[in-house]
Amino acid sequence: MQEHYDVAVVGASGMIGEAIMSILEEREFPVRNIYPLGSKRSAGTTLMFRDEPVQIGLLSEFDFSKVQYGLFSAGASVSDVFAPQAAARGCTVIDNTSRFRYDPDIPLVIPEVNGEALHDHSHLIANPNCSTIQMIVALKPIYDAVGIERINVCTYQSVSGAGRSAVNELANQSAALLNGRDAEISVAPRQIAFNAIPHIDVFQDNGYTKEEMKMVWETRKILNDESIRVNPTTVRIPVFFGHSEAVHIETRHKLRAAEARELLRAAKGITVIDDPGELQYPTAVTDAANRDDVFVGRIREDISHELGLNMWIVSDNVRKGGALNSVQIAEYLVYGES
Amino acid sequence: MQEHYDVAVVGASGMIGEAIMSILEEREFPVRNIYPLGSKRSAGTTLMFRDEPVQIGLLSEFDFSKVQYGLFSAGASVSDVFAPQAAARGCTVIDNTSRFRYDPDIPLVIPEVNGEALHDHSHLIANPNCSTIQMIVALKPIYDAVGIERINVCTYQSVSGAGRSAVNELANQSAALLNGRDAEISVAPRQIAFNAIPHIDVFQDNGYTKEEMKMVWETRKILNDESIRVNPTTVRIPVFFGHSEAVHIETRHKLRAAEARELLRAAKGITVIDDPGELQYPTAVTDAANRDDVFVGRIREDISHELGLNMWIVSDNVRKGGALNSVQIAEYLVYGES
Repeated sequence: MQEHYDVAVVGASGMIGEAIMSILEEREFPVRNIYPLGSKRSAGTTLMFRDEPVQIGLLSEFDFSKVQYGLFSAGASVSDVFAPQAAARGCTVIDNTSRFRYDPDIPLVIPEVNGEALHDHSHLIANPNCSTIQMIVALKPIYDAVGIERINVCTYQSVSGAGRSAVNELANQSAALLNGRDAEISVAPRQIAFNAIPHIDVFQDNGYTKEEMKMVWETRKILNDESIRVNPTTVRIPVFFGHSEAVHIETRHKLRAAEARELLRAAKGITVIDDPGELQYPTAVTDAANRDDVFVGRIREDISHELGLNMWIVSDNVRKGGALNSVQIAEYLVYGES
Repeated sequence: MQEHYDVAVVGASGMIGEAIMSILEEREFPVRNIYPLGSKRSAGTTLMFRDEPVQIGLLSEFDFSKVQYGLFSAGASVSDVFAPQAAARGCTVIDNTSRFRYDPDIPLVIPEVNGEALHDHSHLIANPNCSTIQMIVALKPIYDAVGIERINVCTYQSVSGAGRSAVNELANQSAALLNGRDAEISVAPRQIAFNAIPHIDVFQDNGYTKEEMKMVWETRKILNDESIRVNPTTVRIPVFFGHSEAVHIETRHKLRAAEARELLRAAKGITVIDDPGELQYPTAVTDAANRDDVFVGRIREDISHELGLNMWIVSDNVRKGGALNSVQIAEYLVYGES
């Protein structure tokens, strides 16, 4: 008989938290009791889980010894305080913030890429950043086949990566501007409606943003390869859901576009949409939003580099980039390698 | 006394044509008579030039021997027929379509970059593509100082690059979606509102789009350097005016970010907005739209390549990317090197 588990969802009223609840349900994760948790602001709110109402509890008063799994997505400062407390009480924390990602003792996991890193953990597991996850899912089959020396990546990231308030901001600004009114700026650092902003998270001393450095640090940690060189420019654009990425890689050995296409077609969690003759390629709105897979198209040999290969990688940043990957980590822990 | 010239503007009712008329006026180009021209659809419409009404004439009936300059921006098929006819009648054609750009006998010119190419022409001069112009204006000082081996570029292109109907489409789709209605698709190959489309112009046999190959071919022709390697991914995003580009270059000799910043600050036609500490960088909406300069920020040394340098280049694609550059070509011909 399938064992069942008690699960806490921290940040249940947020976009990722909400998606975690619905993904646990739709993938029939063996939940016995679910405990959505939040701050004073959201505690007391009623959510639905498996057609039953369930109230958001107060995180600061919750006893984590009651649950075996805690899925955290309420921000790094919340995880900083409560994730170690939960882990100390025997709850396995799957943390979807940047708080523990760069701690060498804490596994950073995309189950289909480095699930084996889950074999050794101390009740704390980190979920990578959304923009890293979709890139690495798509690159792993190529990395395994021919090696990757260097990655130039430019992102086209949706506002949902910055949470529900950023989604509302894009809608409100767009409506205001279309009606001849001024755009009010609150979440994004500039007007995001009808604009492109090359600034996500804080600037680092080397001139890159932290969002860019996440892609550098996390790629190396997940692939367990300090030699891989990554050069990102990350950009927020006026899209609600789904991150797109233009990825230009340099492999260790030659890989033809047709071979790359076949490798990716055979890989789990990837859908190749790539037929220029039929004008087929993935986009955020038409393919990725609300879907689980990472979508890859525009695969072509780089005319500027003998070992270069280009592609266009699109995925739902709330699902595979966050909630789904967290639930897949829990599934891996429960079922073993799927 | 300043000589004056008779000027025809072909495609005067289009977005670039309209901008050409107003730029001729605001820069006080020495126009004697202006002849806005168009198809049957637009002929007879009245425009204003220097506070005087002027009617759009019928292109097919116009006698080009009446003018010394013809600025064409009505599409490649129109230029194909009428530009050689005009040139044969002694009119110097400045063509803002792709029709003649790759003809080795026809100069392809950004005046501040390769104005000297104008010293030898047979009444036909090509204006480069918008996405190439802003990139090359920003890269030329670096190219001259240390050489450039390779360019990885990803574009974030506004819909105005596809003309007025594409601007209307973005507005209409955005309004429809914000009101819960479906988006009607007519100009862009997918829904453009709240989406990113990695497909501009037609696909080529090598898997690149023609928009991407324009950046390859034109960079080489303008810099007169067949050795420079260019790897573009060009993407349309829901921005009305202003193209942005994430440009990752590999130079021949080492150039520090601070040195690049100084080179660009000293260059004509470039405004550097680059202070991460003060969160300063250019964006399409806040800086480029309706301005003449090419704006550069996010200048940083590439952590993945010893000779790498990254930057973010933004410009108004209708002005410097099209109308302004065409007028600047005419100015160069009239005044010589400015």
